[in-house]
Amino acid sequence: MNLNEIRNKIDHLDGEILKLVYERMELGLRTRRQKLTVTDKEREEQVLDNIMRFSGRLLSAEFIQNLYKIIIEESKQLQASGRLLVGFQGEHGAYSELAARKYEADLVPIPCQEFKEVFEGIKNKNFDFGIVPVENSIEGSVSEVNGLLAANDLMIVGEASLPVNHCLLTLPETDYREIRIVYSHPQALAQCREFLRRHKFEPRSFYDTAGAAKMLSSLRPGAAAAIASADCEKFYGLKVLKENIQDERTNRTRFIVLALEKKVKGGNKCTIIFALKDEAGALCEMLKVFSDRGINLTRIESRPQKFHPGHYLFLADFQGSDSEDRVKEALYEVEQKATFYKFLGCYQEEKR
Amino acid sequence: MNLNEIRNKIDHLDGEILKLVYERMELGLRTRRQKLTVTDKEREEQVLDNIMRFSGRLLSAEFIQNLYKIIIEESKQLQASGRLLVGFQGEHGAYSELAARKYEADLVPIPCQEFKEVFEGIKNKNFDFGIVPVENSIEGSVSEVNGLLAANDLMIVGEASLPVNHCLLTLPETDYREIRIVYSHPQALAQCREFLRRHKFEPRSFYDTAGAAKMLSSLRPGAAAAIASADCEKFYGLKVLKENIQDERTNRTRFIVLALEKKVKGGNKCTIIFALKDEAGALCEMLKVFSDRGINLTRIESRPQKFHPGHYLFLADFQGSDSEDRVKEALYEVEQKATFYKFLGCYQEEKR
Repeated sequence: MNLNEIRNKIDHLDGEILKLVYERMELGLRTRRQKLTVTDKEREEQVLDNIMRFSGRLLSAEFIQNLYKIIIEESKQLQASGRLLVGFQGEHGAYSELAARKYEADLVPIPCQEFKEVFEGIKNKNFDFGIVPVENSIEGSVSEVNGLLAANDLMIVGEASLPVNHCLLTLPETDYREIRIVYSHPQALAQCREFLRRHKFEPRSFYDTAGAAKMLSSLRPGAAAAIASADCEKFYGLKVLKENIQDERTNRTRFIVLALEKKVKGGNKCTIIFALKDEAGALCEMLKVFSDRGINLTRIESRPQKFHPGHYLFLADFQGSDSEDRVKEALYEVEQKATFYKFLGCYQEEKR
Repeated sequence: MNLNEIRNKIDHLDGEILKLVYERMELGLRTRRQKLTVTDKEREEQVLDNIMRFSGRLLSAEFIQNLYKIIIEESKQLQASGRLLVGFQGEHGAYSELAARKYEADLVPIPCQEFKEVFEGIKNKNFDFGIVPVENSIEGSVSEVNGLLAANDLMIVGEASLPVNHCLLTLPETDYREIRIVYSHPQALAQCREFLRRHKFEPRSFYDTAGAAKMLSSLRPGAAAAIASADCEKFYGLKVLKENIQDERTNRTRFIVLALEKKVKGGNKCTIIFALKDEAGALCEMLKVFSDRGINLTRIESRPQKFHPGHYLFLADFQGSDSEDRVKEALYEVEQKATFYKFLGCYQEEKR
């Protein structure tokens, strides 16, 4: 290897080191929920024991100790800072993570493999919040999210809507003209169909948009690119060749923010979930409850009930606050008529 | 994840972080060979630019700077220390690395993917030394090494002989009774055939002994073990379940140490390489040159010549120093009789 090649490798390693340090800080923050105090002397000794096995050759004991003094100190400061955690499904750089930052910049987004992990993390108090896509998602099944909303006792405490800005990302060393294969989530590929066709790029499905960027950065395949958020550029050391490559310029994804309970009052939008017997006029009668009171529904979605054949589950969003009398009345009536009813929360609507 | 699970994950991450820091120090040492001074302000700014892309979220700019101040300082100190580098084929924990440390504890072993990379690293002055197995190797083809010795102008400056101590290693969480599959280099598996048969373990071939240990540590397959050196225990965070599992207790591998030139005088053993026409009596006549002078050959090996059909290449080790008159005379005579001749070096024999 010549000097330049070695230095490129060092730069790559530095990125990998900091990604692991980043992950370590996230895990540190997660332990905070499960212990009484930030400082735990016994555990710190355990950590030192574990890392000292690397000392004595190229890395001196003193160097390792100094390095970890800084890492442990920073981890403890972060834990003491009281920053709140929000679980999201996907890898770092996912649109869900961007949405979490948009909702509240100071939240710490924690990646989860599955939506189920997000819901369980909130229930177990590992996370303060969770964020999941509910409409026009490119990162997974919205119907899965609706099922989890029905099955879990969590509250919707907010929402965030994000314009989808698909970017074409490559390794810094890849030339535009070399690209032949483009990796991304099937829905992101579908949303950029025209762009891919025009450039004669071959689409290749991947489990996740940010996951495709991550794979590019670690496996470094030649002649390849990924479609993901612009946020993946810095985190995975890639370069954005082109922004906004989706065919529809007005594409947006809406996310909801979940918590174990609602901590602040107020809000101007509600979500409920209810089940009805599968018979003519049942839904119409229910919708009349709202229209009679001038309450505007912004979404209604039906979902067959897994354990209750013959009954249909509905998710409905409407404008209004649960502190208004007309809303209270409507909700009371819905509860009376439904075979199953759950109030999912009243929160601030995000104006687009 | 509960507290214990998170902490296990942190311990694993710490190991990964330090392995990358270790690799970074190795690369830093390699740059030293290709630049005029240890300190390079412009490059340090490049490094900071690169790592600063991680700042601003969970990692503060100040923290990253403090962390890298320590890493860069340590790297510069190592570079200034003048420690010498020795290339070896394999992953960290390979028997070649152990042999390098046995030869000279202060050398810094640098892993290479191929034997060729070891030879080229010495030629390009990336390494001060190289170490390669020559007899009874479990880590690759000795005949490949002999070919490289013939094709390259490098000197043998020393040797090291290592008892083979194959260990059975597993993940710390694996129970002895769970093990079903054992990964290792085919030759290591062959050398432990009896042991594997007795325990009804299924042998599974892998490209390298230490590579099998590394795979265990990163992919964490259940019910599996690796056969490798005891050195892999600390580096890959594994546990040694049993030492010395090879069927033959007296198994040793001999390694030679290579350099661009011989830096110290002395030695009591020489290696030469020569070619002869493929005709009756040619080798016998050559061996007589040595026996007439009471010079004891300790190894002779023949190898067909790729580019010179009809001629045979011989590698020979003998006891004696190139400063002795009888050795000088013998070598002069060999050179006269051979169709090709090269003196590979005079070095200290390692007594077993």
